[in-house]
Amino acid sequence: MDMYNEKMKEIVIKARKAAYVLSVMSSDEKNKVLMAMAEGIEGARQAILEANSIDVANAEKNGKTKAFIDRLKLDDKRISAMSSMLREVTVLDDPVGKVIEKRKRPNGLLIKKVRVPIGVIGIIYEARPNVTADCAALCLKSGNAVILRGGSDAIRSNVEIYKAMCEKAYSQGLPDGAVIVIEDTSRELVDAMLSAVGGIDLIMPRGGEELIKQVVEKSRVPVIKHYKGICHVYVDKKADMTMAENICYNAKVQRPGVCNAMETMLVHEKIAARFLPLIYEKLAAEKVAIKGCQNTLRILAGKEIQPVSELDYYTEYSDLILNVRVVGSLDEAIDHINKYGSGHSDAIVTSSKKTALEFTSRVDSAAVYVNASTRFTDGGEFGLGAEIGISTDKIHARGPMGLEELTIYKYVVTGNGQIRS
Amino acid sequence: MDMYNEKMKEIVIKARKAAYVLSVMSSDEKNKVLMAMAEGIEGARQAILEANSIDVANAEKNGKTKAFIDRLKLDDKRISAMSSMLREVTVLDDPVGKVIEKRKRPNGLLIKKVRVPIGVIGIIYEARPNVTADCAALCLKSGNAVILRGGSDAIRSNVEIYKAMCEKAYSQGLPDGAVIVIEDTSRELVDAMLSAVGGIDLIMPRGGEELIKQVVEKSRVPVIKHYKGICHVYVDKKADMTMAENICYNAKVQRPGVCNAMETMLVHEKIAARFLPLIYEKLAAEKVAIKGCQNTLRILAGKEIQPVSELDYYTEYSDLILNVRVVGSLDEAIDHINKYGSGHSDAIVTSSKKTALEFTSRVDSAAVYVNASTRFTDGGEFGLGAEIGISTDKIHARGPMGLEELTIYKYVVTGNGQIRS
Repeated sequence: MDMYNEKMKEIVIKARKAAYVLSVMSSDEKNKVLMAMAEGIEGARQAILEANSIDVANAEKNGKTKAFIDRLKLDDKRISAMSSMLREVTVLDDPVGKVIEKRKRPNGLLIKKVRVPIGVIGIIYEARPNVTADCAALCLKSGNAVILRGGSDAIRSNVEIYKAMCEKAYSQGLPDGAVIVIEDTSRELVDAMLSAVGGIDLIMPRGGEELIKQVVEKSRVPVIKHYKGICHVYVDKKADMTMAENICYNAKVQRPGVCNAMETMLVHEKIAARFLPLIYEKLAAEKVAIKGCQNTLRILAGKEIQPVSELDYYTEYSDLILNVRVVGSLDEAIDHINKYGSGHSDAIVTSSKKTALEFTSRVDSAAVYVNASTRFTDGGEFGLGAEIGISTDKIHARGPMGLEELTIYKYVVTGNGQIRS
Repeated sequence: MDMYNEKMKEIVIKARKAAYVLSVMSSDEKNKVLMAMAEGIEGARQAILEANSIDVANAEKNGKTKAFIDRLKLDDKRISAMSSMLREVTVLDDPVGKVIEKRKRPNGLLIKKVRVPIGVIGIIYEARPNVTADCAALCLKSGNAVILRGGSDAIRSNVEIYKAMCEKAYSQGLPDGAVIVIEDTSRELVDAMLSAVGGIDLIMPRGGEELIKQVVEKSRVPVIKHYKGICHVYVDKKADMTMAENICYNAKVQRPGVCNAMETMLVHEKIAARFLPLIYEKLAAEKVAIKGCQNTLRILAGKEIQPVSELDYYTEYSDLILNVRVVGSLDEAIDHINKYGSGHSDAIVTSSKKTALEFTSRVDSAAVYVNASTRFTDGGEFGLGAEIGISTDKIHARGPMGLEELTIYKYVVTGNGQIRS
C-alpha cells in the first residue's frame, strides 16, 4: 500500500533540494536568516493574533478543553517569546562541520568523521503554534529542512507564523523549501509523510500519548519520540532527610504538568516510618493526592490516602497526584523503575557513593540523578541551549535533544591514490 | 493488530533481564565469556559441520542457487574464522562506560554523558550462519542482549553454533538470555519481533533488498539498515589520469560482489575522450560489461558497449557490470550521485582541493572519498575493528557500525540537593 502520494512527493522534492543548500550554508548565513525570521514575527504580531483568534474561537465552538485552548492561544508575550527564541538560536554553537574524530590509517588514508545535518525532518504535532517557530529555528540552524504538520485546530495560526517568519527571510537567503508548513490537515497527508521512506529522514512526533502511538504504529520513516514521562525519586535508607524532602517536593509540586515531574516516590523501608510523615505534611499542604502501597497506608494510617494499583504505577498523571511505595532494598527500587518507568528521568537521594553508583549504572533511563530533582531534564538546564524535544528512545539520542542531536556524521576520507588489495 | 504475541513476550522478558546484567559487566568479564564462546565453537566443529551438511542438502533439494549454497555452506576454514573473530573481539576497546562529555553547570550540577549499551537488539538475517557468531560477539561485547532470527534454511547450523558458543559460556558468566537463537522460523514470529515496541530496542536486518524492504514496511521497532550499495567514482577534469585508472579499476574489479564496489563511473567531459579509451582497455580485459551514456557510446564507438538506461543508474549489479556517464560539470556529477546513489560510498579523483571540498561537502553519503577507492568502506579498514553492518540510514549511525555504534548514552547527573526554581 503506497501511501506516499504525488502531493507528498512534490513537497519532499522541494524540501530535499533545500536541505542540500542548507547543508553547506555557513553559520553566519543561517544566523542572518534567523534574525530576519525573528523580525518577521515581530512585524506580523497583529496578523498572527488575528489568525489565532479565529483558531481559538473555532476550538471553543468545537468544545475543546480549557487546557487545549490554553496551549493554542497566543498573546503578545507568547509572540515575543517566539521572536526571542529565534534570536537566541543564533548565538548557539553550530554543530555542522565539526570534526568528531580524525585518524590516519597505516595506508596513509586520513579518515575524518564530520558532523552533518540529518537532511529532511518531519514534525507532526498538535495545536501548539509555538512548535512551528521552535522547530523551524532549530532545524534551520542545524542545517535541516523541516516539514511541519500541525493540528488542524491551529492551522490559521501556523500558516500566519510561517508567512511572518519566512516571507521576508527568503530575500535573506532562506532556501525555498527549507521550512514547509503543510496546510492540508487531512489524515491522508499524515499517512503520506509517514510513508515517505528515503524522502523524509526522520519523523519527530510532538504531542500526547495517542499521537505518538499512532505515529509509531504507522511510520515507515525512522521516528524519535518522547513517549511518556513517568519519573521516580528513590529515597534511600542513607538519605539526608531534609534534602530528600526538598527534592521530592520540588519534583512533584514545582510544575506537576511537565514530563520531568515525579509520578512515583519510592522509599526505603528503613526510613519510611520517619520520612513519610514529614513529606506527607509538605505534600498535603499543596493538595497532592497520594496513592500508597500497603506499607505506606499502614505508616500513614489515619491520613487521607488511597491505595495504589499496579496500573497507577504505569500512569503519567501530569497532575498533583503521587504514587508512594515502600521498598525493601535498592534492588527493589531499581526493578520498579526499570519495569514501570518510561526511561525518562529518575533520581536517588542517598549519601552512599556506592549505592548512588549502583543506581546510576543500573537504572536504564535517559537521565539518572543523584541528590537532585528530576525537574532538571531540559535542554536549557543541561546547557544544550534550546531543545526540540526529549527522547525516551534508545537510538540516536536520549534525553534533551538540542542542535547536535539534530545532526549525524559522514566519513570524509582523503587519500593519494589508495586502492584496496 | 497486536502481533506482539505471548511467545515473543517471553523471549523479550528473558532478553531484557540479561541486558540489565550485561550492561554492568566489566570488559574482563565479557572477554572471558567471549573466549569461552570461541573455545566452544572449536570444540564443536564436527557437530556444526554435520548440522550444516543437512541444511546444505535440504537447500540443494529445494533448488537454491549456487550463490545461496555458497553463503550457507560451512567448512573448517569458516568455522575457524568464527572462533578467531570471537577472540579478536576480546581485544577491541569496550565503549561501555566511556564519558563522552562532562560539564559542570552554574548551579553546581555535574552532568556526565556516559556510553551505555542500547539494550536488546534483534537481528533478522538470511541463510548465513556466520552472522549468528558475528552478531552474538559484537552485541555481547557492547553489552547488548541479542535475539537472532536467521533464515529457515540455516536453522540447524544456527542452533548448533548457538549451542557450541553458549552452552559452556554460561558457566563462565554469560547471562541466560543474552544470546537467543529463535528456532521458530515462521513469518508470525518475525512479525512479533517487529511489533515488540519497548521490548526490542533496535532491529537490524541483514540481507538482500527484499528482506530489508519487508522489515522497514512492517517494523514498529526502530530499524537501522544497510539498504543498497550504489557507489560512484567521479573522475574530475583535473584528475591524475593514472590514479583515476587505478582507483576505478580497483573499485569495480577487485571484488565486484560487495556493497562498496563501484556501480557507476562519472567522467568529466573535458577528459572523457582521453580517459575512457584507457579505462576501457583495463576493464575489458577483466570482462567488465559496460553500459554507456550517449557521449560514452560516441567516444568509445566501435567498442562493445550497451546503452545505459535510467533504471540502470538505480541498480546495484554486484557483478562485473558498469554504468558510464559523461558529465558536463562537478554539479552534474554531484546531482547524479545524490539522485541515483544509495548514500553509501562515493569518490572523486581530482588534484583540485577546492573541487574535492565541494564534492565531500555536497555529496550526501555515509563515506565520501578523495583520491581513494570506495572499497575502503569497512569497519576493519576504518579502524573500528569488526563491524555488524554498514548503515545507509541518516540517524544514529552512518557507514560501518562497530562496537561504539551499538551503544547509546545516558546522562548521569550528580548534585548536592539541587532543586529547580
